Amino acid sequence: MRQILVIGAGKSTSVLIAYLLEKLEKENLFLTIGDLEIEQAKKLCNNHPRCKAIYLDVSDKDIRESAIKQADIVISMLPARFHLEAAKDCVKFKKSLVTASYVSKEMKALDKEVKENGLVFMNEIGVDPGIDHMSAMRVIDSIRDNGGKMLLFESFTGGLVAPESDNNLWNYKFTWNPRNVVVAGQGGVAEFIQEGKYKYIPYHRLFRRTEFMHIDGYGKFEGYANRNSLDYRSIYGLEDILTLYRGTIRRVGFSRAWNMFVQLGVTDDTYVLQDSKNMSYRDFINSFLPYSPTATVELKFRLNLKIDQDDIMWDKIVELDLFNDEKKIGIENATPAQALQKILSDKWTLAEDDKDMIVMHHKFGYELNGEKKQIESTMVHIGKNQNQTAMAKTVGLPVAIATLSILNGKITTPGVQIPITKEVYEPILKELEVHGIIFTEKETDYLGYNPFGEVGN
Amino acid sequence: MRQILVIGAGKSTSVLIAYLLEKLEKENLFLTIGDLEIEQAKKLCNNHPRCKAIYLDVSDKDIRESAIKQADIVISMLPARFHLEAAKDCVKFKKSLVTASYVSKEMKALDKEVKENGLVFMNEIGVDPGIDHMSAMRVIDSIRDNGGKMLLFESFTGGLVAPESDNNLWNYKFTWNPRNVVVAGQGGVAEFIQEGKYKYIPYHRLFRRTEFMHIDGYGKFEGYANRNSLDYRSIYGLEDILTLYRGTIRRVGFSRAWNMFVQLGVTDDTYVLQDSKNMSYRDFINSFLPYSPTATVELKFRLNLKIDQDDIMWDKIVELDLFNDEKKIGIENATPAQALQKILSDKWTLAEDDKDMIVMHHKFGYELNGEKKQIESTMVHIGKNQNQTAMAKTVGLPVAIATLSILNGKITTPGVQIPITKEVYEPILKELEVHGIIFTEKETDYLGYNPFGEVGN
Repeated sequence: MRQILVIGAGKSTSVLIAYLLEKLEKENLFLTIGDLEIEQAKKLCNNHPRCKAIYLDVSDKDIRESAIKQADIVISMLPARFHLEAAKDCVKFKKSLVTASYVSKEMKALDKEVKENGLVFMNEIGVDPGIDHMSAMRVIDSIRDNGGKMLLFESFTGGLVAPESDNNLWNYKFTWNPRNVVVAGQGGVAEFIQEGKYKYIPYHRLFRRTEFMHIDGYGKFEGYANRNSLDYRSIYGLEDILTLYRGTIRRVGFSRAWNMFVQLGVTDDTYVLQDSKNMSYRDFINSFLPYSPTATVELKFRLNLKIDQDDIMWDKIVELDLFNDEKKIGIENATPAQALQKILSDKWTLAEDDKDMIVMHHKFGYELNGEKKQIESTMVHIGKNQNQTAMAKTVGLPVAIATLSILNGKITTPGVQIPITKEVYEPILKELEVHGIIFTEKETDYLGYNPFGEVGN
Repeated sequence: MRQILVIGAGKSTSVLIAYLLEKLEKENLFLTIGDLEIEQAKKLCNNHPRCKAIYLDVSDKDIRESAIKQADIVISMLPARFHLEAAKDCVKFKKSLVTASYVSKEMKALDKEVKENGLVFMNEIGVDPGIDHMSAMRVIDSIRDNGGKMLLFESFTGGLVAPESDNNLWNYKFTWNPRNVVVAGQGGVAEFIQEGKYKYIPYHRLFRRTEFMHIDGYGKFEGYANRNSLDYRSIYGLEDILTLYRGTIRRVGFSRAWNMFVQLGVTDDTYVLQDSKNMSYRDFINSFLPYSPTATVELKFRLNLKIDQDDIMWDKIVELDLFNDEKKIGIENATPAQALQKILSDKWTLAEDDKDMIVMHHKFGYELNGEKKQIESTMVHIGKNQNQTAMAKTVGLPVAIATLSILNGKITTPGVQIPITKEVYEPILKELEVHGIIFTEKETDYLGYNPFGEVGN
């Protein structure tokens, strides 16, 4: 019986575990789920005879080593900063490893030893990063195999609320870590390349320099730039590409509204507010507006951000109950971002029967036989319920499939890697299709970069 | 013969040294000027028989110690980060110390030893910090001595070009370190208190939330908020004050124009530009604007920042030659801020016969016998020429005067300190008046905070 060890039994692992449970008999596997909270791990095992839950504190060397020693392959679903010790043990005891996290410098440094031991350390095999790598490389490889030369690559992903659960003016709810949404875009300039020209967007302009896209069957969306687009030149072997842009998808109008918060300064996560615990929502907003002995906070807000009272932007603000003077932030030493997250969570938390949605959209521009062409590749996936979300599914399934592929000798090339080779992405994308995670590719006219964009944004 | 050691003979020390040279005979002093560039130090000595120039590398322990050992008092005019080793030697050899820099944590930590040895370590005794402390505390102390209760304190300082040399549309030239001007306001939120309410201004709004002020004889100015206003509550003993605001003075219109750079993102100093050395000014600006196959950089700039072609803002931009495609940035691995500084230096460097100007303006609101009152205190000082600038004079004179006052036993209270006590500010302000650095105080109606400001800024 082959042994799989999953470290970390957080909410995002539900689909991953469910998939593995179903394969245990047929594949002759035994599954061990290790977590600090053994009850949560037990629940996930669901009394399956081939599954056991163990207490696992990844910082406890003895416990960690003994669990890893007994496994044939290890999946780490912990936050990225906790992978390293487990990874080192995997080298020591010669076990392959699967994670959905970005490859850290320290992880990369294990590459030589991993190769020497013939192990596979597969990282970035969730949804983003993960499915984005695989679905993009499939098209890029096929363009190249046909003799095409890549000119343009744009890639967008978004975790959104499904249309059937979309019932607020922002067309948005928190479907993943709310903190990441509030601080999105901070900590560095958005840098990319367009038609051979480097472009930089500072944070306070990020949500005004969006691009539109149409997704068949779902209407119009917008994307704002991610920080690290240029990294993908070397990752995808696109060193000479003229246009490379990665972004985050939102429903049209979200970014313009979110920009009000950016302009106000309430998304800042770098300092703490005075007496944040006792601040009302109204106090919080007022502390970012000029003092006036007479004007209301509402009036100052509108004047400051130049919003007419019949502008939908204003309705979006009112919907959030921002000016309530009874509701308190209630957090000691909160940053503005933490206070804002508290306010938004009142309104943007998924209800019990709400569904989420993952949207991924790539554009590939290339030249073939002197002709410019473009391919668009799109995937939309809607969650089943609050437990089996689209997010948990699109993260969990590729991790699970990759794990079995390694165990069954379908993925064999050793090293610390990400899923950008045919050996890896072909079988995984094929099985994802069986589970309804399907990319639709279509040829379009070559439109180039940002065809619907405005020069003045 | 008493020995004064000046460490650091930069351009800013011209007036300091000239003042000391004049006093050497009468006060029976000998002056030693130590610098890495001994020629520069020699020039400052000006062949005075009681002055000598020495090579002094402050990081060389032997040289430093031997120079400090021979002195009776030490003046450090080095950048703040180099003071500490000299300060420790001053403790060791029991010498008093004078600097124009902010008190660092490390400097503060020497307080106990400095007191035990009966030494005076006078810091923040330039213009800002320095003359601002002294001129403000004189009024604050007098209000309190009369039984008044402080309600409001606002304080503004600016280093500007003198009206007679003011010949560009920005009404601004670099009169001090240009780098500090380009990155002004970065690295933290501007935080202050107004009528008992904490207020925060993020960097990208800083130059749109200005305040106006009228300076008799010089017209209208504007101020933008400094970052650290709240620190002055404890420094000046104003713990209960309702309004405390410190700012930087510019001519009206500067901030609105500077805001174009902030919005564009070209003041950022946190990352380096790709291939900055070979970038033209035009390339530089274009990299912060959206790509367009047809629109010019000029058009994109105006659209992006919503500037009409007959707006004076546009004339200010054109004046800087920002769209020149031949002039190169010419700096390897430049940050946007460094590139912008290069462009501005072409136009904003003081000409040989240009004069600079220091403007300082305080407002004090207080209550006395149930009545609210306000005092405004203003100092304007214009430089003589490019060598004897107002900046060099207002920094150098207080340092020099404080040094002699300590040497002559007029300032005796030991400890690491700043000039906020009567013992210190009274004699120094009195002598500054002799040199034409004069504050004009006038009572006004109590206007409170930001009486000319707009709620919507």
